[in-house]
Amino acid sequence: MSNTVIASLLSRTTTSLYDPAATLSDEQIRELVRVATTAPTAFNFQNWRFIAVRTPEAKATLRTLAWDQPKITDAAVTFIVCGQLIDYSVLPQRLAPAVAAGIMPAQMVEGWQGAARGLYFEQPQRQRDEAVRSGAIGATALIYAAHAQGLGSTPMIGFDADAVARTFALADSELPVMLVSVGRALPENWPQKPRRPVADVLDFI
Amino acid sequence: MSNTVIASLLSRTTTSLYDPAATLSDEQIRELVRVATTAPTAFNFQNWRFIAVRTPEAKATLRTLAWDQPKITDAAVTFIVCGQLIDYSVLPQRLAPAVAAGIMPAQMVEGWQGAARGLYFEQPQRQRDEAVRSGAIGATALIYAAHAQGLGSTPMIGFDADAVARTFALADSELPVMLVSVGRALPENWPQKPRRPVADVLDFI
Repeated sequence: MSNTVIASLLSRTTTSLYDPAATLSDEQIRELVRVATTAPTAFNFQNWRFIAVRTPEAKATLRTLAWDQPKITDAAVTFIVCGQLIDYSVLPQRLAPAVAAGIMPAQMVEGWQGAARGLYFEQPQRQRDEAVRSGAIGATALIYAAHAQGLGSTPMIGFDADAVARTFALADSELPVMLVSVGRALPENWPQKPRRPVADVLDFI
Repeated sequence: MSNTVIASLLSRTTTSLYDPAATLSDEQIRELVRVATTAPTAFNFQNWRFIAVRTPEAKATLRTLAWDQPKITDAAVTFIVCGQLIDYSVLPQRLAPAVAAGIMPAQMVEGWQGAARGLYFEQPQRQRDEAVRSGAIGATALIYAAHAQGLGSTPMIGFDADAVARTFALADSELPVMLVSVGRALPENWPQKPRRPVADVLDFI
């Protein structure tokens, strides 16, 4: 198993060219998000939302706000992956299913909430960092899930975040962290670009 | 293949309890980082650094800066995953191997650098967001790589970021985005906590 999974992680590439005729069903899109949302978030806040943009009209609108990138309209779907500013008061509700399942002792919830309050309450930069972090974690899991399903994907940060938030009616507490297109990749796409040597990005202490 | 990979993504859990006797070799740690750094970054900036903290003394120091969490010292290694503020001037150097490999036409580099300059130059919040995003993407890939190798992992955001930066000599341009412990998980760990229903986190447009 491990070799198969490692090979899948290693072989992910960023798709630029999609088959515009290929579509994804609601069920396929739900399954991608189901897998993605098993990724971890701080305190299990799950402070994210995925907007699956896939009608021709909605994709065309999004494309105008994102450097006119053709992959947005050619891919079957482009997700707006949103991170949400942390509201520590919702944590008991987010943890309730873990308590109900007998995983987490009920008396631990208050301690977790207190820790979350201490970290985030009236700390706007930390709240923003956590929204970006959670959105990026969810987007990464989504990308690997798509690759495992034989689909191409494209993470994008080149877009007008304010215009995307306004046009797609994001809440004041939501940030569009990344766009991720998903669809059938054409064979002409670039292979993975070489990476920096491990010795340049890893230090031992 | 896809079922095996999806099953691996779905079955990742967060480890709290590690076998303190289990270690990882330099080569195993390098391999985890090699896999993690094939994850995508904006413009292929690869604006990240992984600090593998694994001597008993260094782990004990890190633990004092991170809510005294025992997993930091019990796990074989705890990575400080750093994101780096974007310096658009380094982009040609980061893309040179892709040009040399014949993947990317040399004349495209200037356009990418111009786009990166437009996004990040004198935009401190965007630079910070990108550092957090890249660090989180790399940490997520590291977590899935560890799971594929049969290892447990723990993402953590509960630490004193300023003290970690100072103590572990991070550059002014580096943020400690997450800590990630990796090691041999004990059987007593919690199963994965339930997630919000997909319908609560996914919207179609």
